[in-house]
Amino acid sequence: MSSTYGTLFKISTFGESHGPAIGVVIDGCPAGLPFDLDFIQHELTRRKPGQSRITTQRREADEFEVLSGVFDGQTQGTPIAMLIRNTDQRSKDYGHIAEQFRPSHADYTYQTKYGSRDYRGGGRSSARETAARVAAGAVAKLLLARQGVQIQAYVSQVGTLKLDKPHTELNLTLAEENAVRCPDPDTAERMFQYIDEIRKRGDSIGGVVDCVITGVPVGWGEPVFDKLHAELGKAMLSINAVKGFEYGSGFAGVELLGSEHNDEFYTDETGAVRTKTNQSGGIQGGISNGETIYFRTAFKPVATIMQDQDSVDVNGQAVTVSGKGRHDPCVVPRAVPIVEAMAALVLADMMLRNRTAQVSPVAADPTILVKNPENS
Amino acid sequence: MSSTYGTLFKISTFGESHGPAIGVVIDGCPAGLPFDLDFIQHELTRRKPGQSRITTQRREADEFEVLSGVFDGQTQGTPIAMLIRNTDQRSKDYGHIAEQFRPSHADYTYQTKYGSRDYRGGGRSSARETAARVAAGAVAKLLLARQGVQIQAYVSQVGTLKLDKPHTELNLTLAEENAVRCPDPDTAERMFQYIDEIRKRGDSIGGVVDCVITGVPVGWGEPVFDKLHAELGKAMLSINAVKGFEYGSGFAGVELLGSEHNDEFYTDETGAVRTKTNQSGGIQGGISNGETIYFRTAFKPVATIMQDQDSVDVNGQAVTVSGKGRHDPCVVPRAVPIVEAMAALVLADMMLRNRTAQVSPVAADPTILVKNPENS
Amino acid sequence: MSSTYGTLFKISTFGESHGPAIGVVIDGCPAGLPFDLDFIQHELTRRKPGQSRITTQRREADEFEVLSGVFDGQTQGTPIAMLIRNTDQRSKDYGHIAEQFRPSHADYTYQTKYGSRDYRGGGRSSARETAARVAAGAVAKLLLARQGVQIQAYVSQVGTLKLDKPHTELNLTLAEENAVRCPDPDTAERMFQYIDEIRKRGDSIGGVVDCVITGVPVGWGEPVFDKLHAELGKAMLSINAVKGFEYGSGFAGVELLGSEHNDEFYTDETGAVRTKTNQSGGIQGGISNGETIYFRTAFKPVATIMQDQDSVDVNGQAVTVSGKGRHDPCVVPRAVPIVEAMAALVLADMMLRNRTAQVSPVAADPTILVKNPENS
Amino acid sequence: MSSTYGTLFKISTFGESHGPAIGVVIDGCPAGLPFDLDFIQHELTRRKPGQSRITTQRREADEFEVLSGVFDGQTQGTPIAMLIRNTDQRSKDYGHIAEQFRPSHADYTYQTKYGSRDYRGGGRSSARETAARVAAGAVAKLLLARQGVQIQAYVSQVGTLKLDKPHTELNLTLAEENAVRCPDPDTAERMFQYIDEIRKRGDSIGGVVDCVITGVPVGWGEPVFDKLHAELGKAMLSINAVKGFEYGSGFAGVELLGSEHNDEFYTDETGAVRTKTNQSGGIQGGISNGETIYFRTAFKPVATIMQDQDSVDVNGQAVTVSGKGRHDPCVVPRAVPIVEAMAALVLADMMLRNRTAQVSPVAADPTILVKNPENS
Repeated sequence: MSSTYGTLFKISTFGESHGPAIGVVIDGCPAGLPFDLDFIQHELTRRKPGQSRITTQRREADEFEVLSGVFDGQTQGTPIAMLIRNTDQRSKDYGHIAEQFRPSHADYTYQTKYGSRDYRGGGRSSARETAARVAAGAVAKLLLARQGVQIQAYVSQVGTLKLDKPHTELNLTLAEENAVRCPDPDTAERMFQYIDEIRKRGDSIGGVVDCVITGVPVGWGEPVFDKLHAELGKAMLSINAVKGFEYGSGFAGVELLGSEHNDEFYTDETGAVRTKTNQSGGIQGGISNGETIYFRTAFKPVATIMQDQDSVDVNGQAVTVSGKGRHDPCVVPRAVPIVEAMAALVLADMMLRNRTAQVSPVAADPTILVKNPENS
Repeated sequence: MSSTYGTLFKISTFGESHGPAIGVVIDGCPAGLPFDLDFIQHELTRRKPGQSRITTQRREADEFEVLSGVFDGQTQGTPIAMLIRNTDQRSKDYGHIAEQFRPSHADYTYQTKYGSRDYRGGGRSSARETAARVAAGAVAKLLLARQGVQIQAYVSQVGTLKLDKPHTELNLTLAEENAVRCPDPDTAERMFQYIDEIRKRGDSIGGVVDCVITGVPVGWGEPVFDKLHAELGKAMLSINAVKGFEYGSGFAGVELLGSEHNDEFYTDETGAVRTKTNQSGGIQGGISNGETIYFRTAFKPVATIMQDQDSVDVNGQAVTVSGKGRHDPCVVPRAVPIVEAMAALVLADMMLRNRTAQVSPVAADPTILVKNPENS
Repeated sequence: MSSTYGTLFKISTFGESHGPAIGVVIDGCPAGLPFDLDFIQHELTRRKPGQSRITTQRREADEFEVLSGVFDGQTQGTPIAMLIRNTDQRSKDYGHIAEQFRPSHADYTYQTKYGSRDYRGGGRSSARETAARVAAGAVAKLLLARQGVQIQAYVSQVGTLKLDKPHTELNLTLAEENAVRCPDPDTAERMFQYIDEIRKRGDSIGGVVDCVITGVPVGWGEPVFDKLHAELGKAMLSINAVKGFEYGSGFAGVELLGSEHNDEFYTDETGAVRTKTNQSGGIQGGISNGETIYFRTAFKPVATIMQDQDSVDVNGQAVTVSGKGRHDPCVVPRAVPIVEAMAALVLADMMLRNRTAQVSPVAADPTILVKNPENS
Repeated sequence: MSSTYGTLFKISTFGESHGPAIGVVIDGCPAGLPFDLDFIQHELTRRKPGQSRITTQRREADEFEVLSGVFDGQTQGTPIAMLIRNTDQRSKDYGHIAEQFRPSHADYTYQTKYGSRDYRGGGRSSARETAARVAAGAVAKLLLARQGVQIQAYVSQVGTLKLDKPHTELNLTLAEENAVRCPDPDTAERMFQYIDEIRKRGDSIGGVVDCVITGVPVGWGEPVFDKLHAELGKAMLSINAVKGFEYGSGFAGVELLGSEHNDEFYTDETGAVRTKTNQSGGIQGGISNGETIYFRTAFKPVATIMQDQDSVDVNGQAVTVSGKGRHDPCVVPRAVPIVEAMAALVLADMMLRNRTAQVSPVAADPTILVKNPENS
């Protein structure tokens, strides 16, 4: 498996849905960061289940304990371990699927790859793992905030209901004021009713989360394989239920001519180099260009539905899988803080990696490399 | 920078567009693989410039030299280095941009991140680097072919011209029979004329490349952060000009209900577990499920156009950038082998990583762990 | 910092000496390994403080909790997290060093590198961190035991008292029968008295731990940079207080002629290729050759002594550091399980890495790589 | 295999002894480093064969070509590829060992691990690979020289002939003035005669290389697993023929009491914190403390000797291996620049890694992390 992410700001998550606990170890967080426990809890609370009737009714406080890495209220440069105990497992809800493969879940692939699986609540494949990401992402956000970086995600689509305004025409701070996390109150209300309707039918629906990042200076991102948008894309695609990622002009940009799509440069009143348009989504050649970064992430409908479905059991025999357990009819409202957390983890890593792009400006005595006159 | 990719099947590319050479080192290719030089050259030829009038007229033979890792016609488990000399650089075409930032190119971001840049032909940010990926990808394909894995990409959209059939209704082998690499001959011809028209106007246009992979057994892909589709997404997004990635149902899947989207399991006549539909795109929980893997990659219009554009120079002064040099009006025909190569690199790595998913079946004498009776 | 080790069998440790807990996450342990809780506790108990009057009197039960990765008594391929609560911190013993740098400790370097430090008990630099390594190493031993690999370390030197027999003339199972962990009872007794004498004087003394590994098949180890002995060396040198490492003939081998040092090959009665001698220490070209692997690790005298020493405080002012706290007068008896654990972690990783040395023997239809006759 | 080394300053070497070429790709060298071609050639010349009658008579110019990463005389932050063509292969000298395993060489282990081997001159296991390390190490030295870091290795022992002075009593610049690279002219002359005598007998002998590093500031090295001395140890042990590594007081320090061994701190006239003694070898807790770093590396006698030896062939049949080819009777004179190169690679990487130990001092507006008043 690979439950680690990052090159310098590196996380390692662990835990199963119905095991004793989930958690994360952050290795590589710089020393000297004030560790804001309230903010981390705030972020976990944004993701936790049971927030409204359109999210799963599992009751988890999602309180966390810091096991290491923090002293006198600050990070020490040592690994930061954070632990979240599972408290509201109802594993008996899952006894029926011990022997069955739920459609479009990871049951079959885990069972085949590993020869066994912890079937309770999806085990390791459960989105419960993302709580650990959110905790780590909150630390990354604290680090980024020092640089002036702000990350704001929101729901832009649920099923066929689309928010038809670009982020530049929205007041994103409104997103947190409703249960759907859509910054347009009217659309949010319609989305809420729509999801609630689907929930009552025992079905589920997909959605899209947009993310907008401001304050990133020019230069973050490693060109070639670890382009900033490539890492953002991987990070988003690593979230449960994600099926697609696009940044800047995205798939729609395909239909434009180069003369329409190119972002011309100009110098603004402060002397900063800027672009007139932002089809590039704040990233050129895999490196941030100082403009607003924005991208979109597509989530499929949640696989767990309260309806009977055809499937097979572990012996390949045909069975009917009945929907049980507590699940979200639409994942995107709770996905908003997860998208932000993953974006923060990518950016924190890229910020640190960028510190080695250039040689140190101060040069010591160049005669230190004494050459043997005999040989040279 | 990070010009390395992969965990076990690991590549490291090097080279600038107008430097002496580009190349790649593959570290971690297993020993014993017959090394088919003709096939590797064939793949490089598919990508090379100057294939038709709708591709750049730069003339590169793209012949490669194997510097290491192969003996008696087989890989040795040692690093495989392959070198491609640059031969048709016309660096004088680029003198005018030494001091200017071309819109939507990487000139400005490289200059700022690194404090300087090799401006000739885009230097390291040029898509010429992808020749090294194609050479390495060809080796990965040779490795995968032993397992029965086949990778086939094709052009499905150019600007607003879309191929409106899914891959299951196409004869993909036709894709290589035309210059656009679209498997539908009629659509291909229309795309060709469309691109040629845009080329004459000195403009450029975007497109979409679809990729279809068969023969992958159940179990490839590392869940959590290195999900198979997350790595495929990163790999595609790391290709020059890519703006989006989706797999399986993708962005369109957002609009479906769970009851419509879920892929029900059944057992086929051979006893294999299969799914009735394939919205999952052959991947569930980040692990291949034995069905066909398919995904789509969006390419923006090429940034170089033969028209005047506003920009700034390295001192922030307003300038007019005039289009010069030799470039592709639409990148997707030549992107097809690049998409395949990147997919092959991801899959070869995942194939090797999967070899350690389970313990070895043979157990030795369990009494070997002698415990001290005093302590236990 | 880098608190992670390993390429495929990968561990990440966390925790400070006087923080709430220490622990480890193992990422990459194959699925299907019976998880022997008793054996892991047994190994932790071998390392724990307070075993006799020649070890520190800190009282830690060193009981561990498994937080994830194990289900139905077996590993699941998912990350295994193990937690050990700290219970007998006496942080008040350390108030006096908050402002002082103890000689030959890591106080000064941590303070300078990170700008602050958790001074209580040495914080992260405390050897308490090695309990996490021992827990992870025990899992690695369980994995290796399936392959018949046995790892046995023992004390061969304390100060000037040397065990003058090679491992081939010793009964290593006797090592665990005395507090010093020296397999020769008479020498062990002399070492015990010697250490106890030094303890009473408030001083400390160094020592050497030898390690002998049997059952490793031919082929483990990655030549060039990750040679088997290079990784073993790094692993040993990463243990607190280690100053040197040698394997096979080691430093003494320097004085031999090639004709004396070379290990000639022969074929034994079972048809196996063997060497007549074993100056190579079971490793040739960085790869195990099937013979017994053996190496030696040198530990300096523990830096904490119960005597006054000159030093400076955080402001650079001269101070006298007085010895307080509970410490080992000689680290080697408790280092034995740590050496074994680190060796096990290296070998488990190399065992898994070796699974990809060669191509899979079964080849699929080679015609799968269809070439376009037009281009090739 | 793993022919890559480093976390941020990362190298990947390739090439076999009798293949077309050897080379190296450096990924992660910061931009803006003046690229001194003469210095790099100077370092390669120090290592090249045929320097005197006590080194192998193979004639290689060891001239190198820079393929990428350098523009206008400076590094660009892009991968630096350097190529050295092999010119004086006499592969026919090796036909006789295609079917035989030379004692204490890597023939048998490579053959078993990989299923085949390039037997010509030892293929990948040849010390010829170290030329690529020296080229990369020269670039690392250029980077380190800017910080005032100087690395000087020398021969301190050949067989039983030992240089009995510590580095503090030697004029290390004399080391390059004789063929043995021992800074004491008299000892050097005796070592030369000794090696030449052994050469005439067709035998070989081991030796020790000491290395002294000055100018490293406080703070380099990553505690826990990647301690500075642990990485130095791994780097040295990865060099062909190395059997042991010790730093600071090393194996001899084992015999000292803590009260003798501890390095007491004081503040010097410039206000810098210093240690009165340097048993720590410039490293405490795995982190440089600003004092001189020194370590010793033990090399075994070269395995190739001009005498008949018993062995087996690839079928396990007993054979006599006759010494042929051109080889060094004692490896240490040519090992001096290799030891320095590997030390430079470790330090360059640690220098870059240390740039992320602390948070950036400048904090932006802390109110950027807007919390939803509803939830917090």
